[in-house]
Amino acid sequence: LALAALPVATRNAALEAMAQGVAARRGEILAANERDRAAARDLVAAGRITQSDAKRLDLSGAKFDAVIEGLRSVASLPDPLGRVQIKTELDEGLVLERVSCPIGVIAVIFESRPDALPQIASLCLKSGNALLLKGGSEARESNRILAQVLDDAARTVAGIPAGWITLLERREEIAEILKLDEFIDLIIPRGGNALCRYIMENTRIPVTGHRDGICHTYVHAGADAARAVRLAVDGKCQYPAVCNATETLLFDRASAGSVMPAVLAALEDKGVALRLDPVAKTFVADPARYADATEEDWRTEYLDLVLSVRVVADLGEAIAHINRYGSHHTDTIVTENADAAERFLAEVDSASVMHNASTRFADGFRYGLGAEVGISTGKLHSRGPVGLEGLTIYKYILRGTGQIVADYSGADGRKFTHRRLQ
Amino acid sequence: LALAALPVATRNAALEAMAQGVAARRGEILAANERDRAAARDLVAAGRITQSDAKRLDLSGAKFDAVIEGLRSVASLPDPLGRVQIKTELDEGLVLERVSCPIGVIAVIFESRPDALPQIASLCLKSGNALLLKGGSEARESNRILAQVLDDAARTVAGIPAGWITLLERREEIAEILKLDEFIDLIIPRGGNALCRYIMENTRIPVTGHRDGICHTYVHAGADAARAVRLAVDGKCQYPAVCNATETLLFDRASAGSVMPAVLAALEDKGVALRLDPVAKTFVADPARYADATEEDWRTEYLDLVLSVRVVADLGEAIAHINRYGSHHTDTIVTENADAAERFLAEVDSASVMHNASTRFADGFRYGLGAEVGISTGKLHSRGPVGLEGLTIYKYILRGTGQIVADYSGADGRKFTHRRLQ
Repeated sequence: LALAALPVATRNAALEAMAQGVAARRGEILAANERDRAAARDLVAAGRITQSDAKRLDLSGAKFDAVIEGLRSVASLPDPLGRVQIKTELDEGLVLERVSCPIGVIAVIFESRPDALPQIASLCLKSGNALLLKGGSEARESNRILAQVLDDAARTVAGIPAGWITLLERREEIAEILKLDEFIDLIIPRGGNALCRYIMENTRIPVTGHRDGICHTYVHAGADAARAVRLAVDGKCQYPAVCNATETLLFDRASAGSVMPAVLAALEDKGVALRLDPVAKTFVADPARYADATEEDWRTEYLDLVLSVRVVADLGEAIAHINRYGSHHTDTIVTENADAAERFLAEVDSASVMHNASTRFADGFRYGLGAEVGISTGKLHSRGPVGLEGLTIYKYILRGTGQIVADYSGADGRKFTHRRLQ
Repeated sequence: LALAALPVATRNAALEAMAQGVAARRGEILAANERDRAAARDLVAAGRITQSDAKRLDLSGAKFDAVIEGLRSVASLPDPLGRVQIKTELDEGLVLERVSCPIGVIAVIFESRPDALPQIASLCLKSGNALLLKGGSEARESNRILAQVLDDAARTVAGIPAGWITLLERREEIAEILKLDEFIDLIIPRGGNALCRYIMENTRIPVTGHRDGICHTYVHAGADAARAVRLAVDGKCQYPAVCNATETLLFDRASAGSVMPAVLAALEDKGVALRLDPVAKTFVADPARYADATEEDWRTEYLDLVLSVRVVADLGEAIAHINRYGSHHTDTIVTENADAAERFLAEVDSASVMHNASTRFADGFRYGLGAEVGISTGKLHSRGPVGLEGLTIYKYILRGTGQIVADYSGADGRKFTHRRLQ
């Protein structure tokens, strides 16, 4: 409640102090990050994590500058608090406002990427929410120094209360916080399916997040071949380890013969292992070269250079496949046919639906939200990339001059004016 | 998904058909309602339910006309679907929209008042959500005929799909639907604390609602005595059985001597049983006349002509009491001091906070939302009275011309324009 009451100038000053603090203590932060990375290299050598897991730990170079830039960009965003969303005169001298305010205490449980920590911390501070953070053990050293630097820097600004950020380090602490539904208002898991499922099944606290990111690129009969190649390659290969990467390619029968060969060849050039369903195999020259795609593949998030391919009869079957097997995260249609595109955008029940754009665009920064604290496939509160607005709720404020409800009752009662003032 | 795709003209035509259907079958509906009321009279006689419980069943007279008027008023509300909430150009030929859409399948579990059924059904239909309804067994006959009449009438309109409304009648069906988290997107319990707690503790489906309505009227040192009397009497007595009725009165020490006697006398005139804390007793002439208020009272929703009274030191203690013991539902301050009012409105962490107005105003119709499907004390998605907007979510729609994320990566990559179009 102390944090919620701070003026935006104080919150922004703290964000600027955090940016300066991170810049000033670069050496200390990168040294800690290097300890995590050395440990990760050992795990890769032992075959316990993938190269791509290890790569996500890296905070050096451009990533470090992006952290500092990210803190400043959140400072420059408009204040999400105190916004009058609705203002209605109920009657003379009786005015209702709906005003945005913080949610309260938010717990974020995230895996691997330590650069997520300053992003999450900055969004929560800007939106006046207290934050409990639990990072992955692979990034323990990086997370510890980052949380310390951010807290030290923010607390140099008068008014920022102790406890605005708390880093949890022990795994058992997750089980403990899941019970605190009286004190924690929202949990945001950012991580793999298993983590999200565990949290959703073990708490009564509201959870915003996503389990899988099973995203589709659907190549419609009306697709331009060159465009389909670019969008499929970007969707799968630009960063395979993230939730908005494409995991399944769908082709119409009509595009399977004409467009599919070029798309598959381009993906193979990038080292993608392809799994084809029986119908798709009838359209390729050497079907035995490809693994089989089974129903299990339609439900699988590879997060790697693996892709399943299915040929569907038409647009309706593509939409049905996506709504049935997808994770309601992000799906795109490649077509030059505007009617088909509009039907796809309307009927696919996903947080982000796209036409002639890569699934990889589904991201708070790219969407212009400033940054994101996570991506939600839920249909309550927030859907898709969750930025500052997703970290606020509202309260109704009614200012009267002594009005009572009894005066508005019965046939002769006063009538409400319900005049929208804003 | 079929319901979600209907144009607003179809949804409104169905609402008008429902209004006509209810009017045409008035006799049938009131006969069923009379069967419920007769059974309720027996239960009152047997001491198993209160007069006030029985009264809530009544659908006759003005309440019946209000049902018809309510259906038409929802038809006249603006379409909550397809609204472009954000429109941003990410780059040339790459435009992002955030568009409102239905949540999906909503289950509403409500007690006693059968007039809630058409209100809930109309809000869900207007917002394109499929509805599972479970009413209280006391209103079984009324609910059954109302659901039948509404379904029959709506289905005369081409396009309204079978299954848009489903009435559940068996108690065991609640336990069954709580498991269907794959199919049901939201549960809204409207009823007592026990019902809400049971639901929240037994499902992984998101729940929007409130357990208690422990609302406070706080009489500040700067209160006008006549105004305090009116607001306290209205807050407690205008309809004691509902969640926004005042359950605890707080007085400053400074107002306890001057204002409290008149307030307590007015409440006693209305038959309110008062429970006073030890400090309050020091301010009344005959303390032995009053029951003691204990800590348990601060946490109790009487829903009857019973009221607890506490004297606090000052505004800060009043706010602390409300945030600690209240249910974050609705709280009001009575004062002529604008600074005190603003501090109360900012620091009380409740869905509705009021100044010089009765707690009884916290209601979707009075707030100009058209009607409400419930009142939420949660801080996710919806807070306070939940109208049409609370029954929608949004999806992000990205329309491109073949853009890929790789082109926006690295130091030489394209830059996003993030130009707000709307």
